Amino acid sequence: MPERVRAAMVRQAINHRGQEFSTVYGDCVRVLREAFGTRNDLFVVSGSGTAAMEAAVGNFGRGRKIACLVNGKFGERLYKISQRYGSAVEVASPWGTPLDLGRLEEALEGGAEMVTLVHNETSAGIKNPAQKVGGLCRKYDALFVMDGITSVGGDEVRADEWGADVVVVGSQKCLAAPAGLSAISVSGRAWERMTEPRPFYLDLAAYRKSAAGKLMETPYTPAVPLFLALREACLIMEEEGLQARVARHRRLADAVRAAAGAWGLPLFPCLDADHAYSNTATAISYPPGIDDSAFRGTIKKMGIEIAGGQDHLKGKIFRIGTMGAVSAPEVLATLAAVQFALARHGFKQKGDGVMAAAEVLG
Amino acid sequence: MPERVRAAMVRQAINHRGQEFSTVYGDCVRVLREAFGTRNDLFVVSGSGTAAMEAAVGNFGRGRKIACLVNGKFGERLYKISQRYGSAVEVASPWGTPLDLGRLEEALEGGAEMVTLVHNETSAGIKNPAQKVGGLCRKYDALFVMDGITSVGGDEVRADEWGADVVVVGSQKCLAAPAGLSAISVSGRAWERMTEPRPFYLDLAAYRKSAAGKLMETPYTPAVPLFLALREACLIMEEEGLQARVARHRRLADAVRAAAGAWGLPLFPCLDADHAYSNTATAISYPPGIDDSAFRGTIKKMGIEIAGGQDHLKGKIFRIGTMGAVSAPEVLATLAAVQFALARHGFKQKGDGVMAAAEVLG
Repeated sequence: MPERVRAAMVRQAINHRGQEFSTVYGDCVRVLREAFGTRNDLFVVSGSGTAAMEAAVGNFGRGRKIACLVNGKFGERLYKISQRYGSAVEVASPWGTPLDLGRLEEALEGGAEMVTLVHNETSAGIKNPAQKVGGLCRKYDALFVMDGITSVGGDEVRADEWGADVVVVGSQKCLAAPAGLSAISVSGRAWERMTEPRPFYLDLAAYRKSAAGKLMETPYTPAVPLFLALREACLIMEEEGLQARVARHRRLADAVRAAAGAWGLPLFPCLDADHAYSNTATAISYPPGIDDSAFRGTIKKMGIEIAGGQDHLKGKIFRIGTMGAVSAPEVLATLAAVQFALARHGFKQKGDGVMAAAEVLG
Repeated sequence: MPERVRAAMVRQAINHRGQEFSTVYGDCVRVLREAFGTRNDLFVVSGSGTAAMEAAVGNFGRGRKIACLVNGKFGERLYKISQRYGSAVEVASPWGTPLDLGRLEEALEGGAEMVTLVHNETSAGIKNPAQKVGGLCRKYDALFVMDGITSVGGDEVRADEWGADVVVVGSQKCLAAPAGLSAISVSGRAWERMTEPRPFYLDLAAYRKSAAGKLMETPYTPAVPLFLALREACLIMEEEGLQARVARHRRLADAVRAAAGAWGLPLFPCLDADHAYSNTATAISYPPGIDDSAFRGTIKKMGIEIAGGQDHLKGKIFRIGTMGAVSAPEVLATLAAVQFALARHGFKQKGDGVMAAAEVLG
């Protein structure tokens, strides 16, 4: 997190029913709408991305037939949430492989009224075809719920153009704010299709009412310091410019991919023409014989943390994040540490990944 | 908020799946257990007090008959939450008047399986008889859900002794931490009676599982800076000592009550032998002819904010909080400002409230 963002939290509490809080909330909404690519209503929730995912399903999916696209951990989470509220069908592919849009269309023909999609599946490093899924949702008049938790603010998101009715983001990913907040946008089409009964803390009707008064408020006490930090992070995004920010994320991810290519290590995702590598998290397959925790331990000794695989991908992949405030020097340092650790743990690299990355960044 | 608490949020993010976070979470749980008066499981939730209230009802009350004791705004909120999950019966008295324990007993005889109570109802300045309610719950084998949002850490709470199965607190009240976190304790009896389906983000089975590993974790990304701040606030509570802290709150509230008495202004609550004035928020009835917003505006000009009434009590009462890190000088300054505003707005005071308060504090 940038220093400005962290410093914004130090001040004394402000009244969350006053003008100043209203301005803070309004600043967040203005910038986030641009990052979402939406003119829809947008609210900030005091809870992590999972809370916003639940708000999406819990306000619009109760009792509905829900088709859940799954090719990674967070797609699975949306499926698990959907099971608690509606009649959920999992349209699953192995993690990191293309979604089966044919089976999605069958589910829509079979009466699915809502579709859930993770736009950028960091668990497997794959970016899913949100626009295509949106087109299918429109064709069959289904609501489109999109998890943009790790894409909004770091990659191109065009919620309105893609027909994404409900979109969510988490504060601690590409927005580079502290963890603990999330945001959710809601289209007119979604408002018309609200379901009941809804959760209470996450009831979006209450959020709408509280945001529509003379002052923008939240229905329940918000996490005030986190709002102050998110506002600062939003102002930084505005100063950088959204296009420049997306280009920076892409360039950093390109550099990581170039390094992997030079080392001779395959990227984990299997792509087709509709899917792409994630620009905010790159998943790289381990070469045979490298122990995940020893490898990451070597890197951690140099003060750098990279992620392993989650659930059944533990030990099979490692992941390098390029989201939020990450900069070229940090990526170079990370790749240098990875390159050292690969050699130390016995992998014979084809070429110099660090220099390949520098070529992209230089 | 004390400076130490605010400063704890400035540091760079820490890994919420690591040893350090586990220690932070553990420190919070240790101190909060003492403040709750419980040996039960206790979790910190990234969400405000309302989220914890919903967790209480949503995990143990689905489909159940729930008797909701109501004599103020927060009792009403628990009733509204209960309506979304179970078959809720409101056992209501006018705000600020004694609860009707006779009607509660009828509801229990009629098969109520859960009872909700707000221990300290700040909307009306009344403290409710938690121990008596707990006794009735045990007699009829019902689960006892207690909102201790504004009493835990500021007044005496003995969850285990009173038989309170599920108890919640908010971070920004008597704990003097920033808004945005809450905590919830769960008895063995409650665990045995979990209901389904549960909310997802607030599913306490997931909290229990994540807290029980080698490292104490939360199931979803926690609001890390708020945990750091809450830990600091808990350490401050531990240093002050819980008994001394409760005594401080009582003394400050005594001082406010002495001032009201000296001015000749009645306290709002109507008490009987079972009920008491709140020691964390004092509700005072306006004398006839004083305009709430003008009166509080005069006080605000001096840099001091006091609360008005909520909902139908707007314009009828004003409220002075004495919770968290509030000190004697702050109470004296507040009372001086109120005394000035009373005179300025035409109320002829019987006596000198500030000196009466000083008598208590001196």
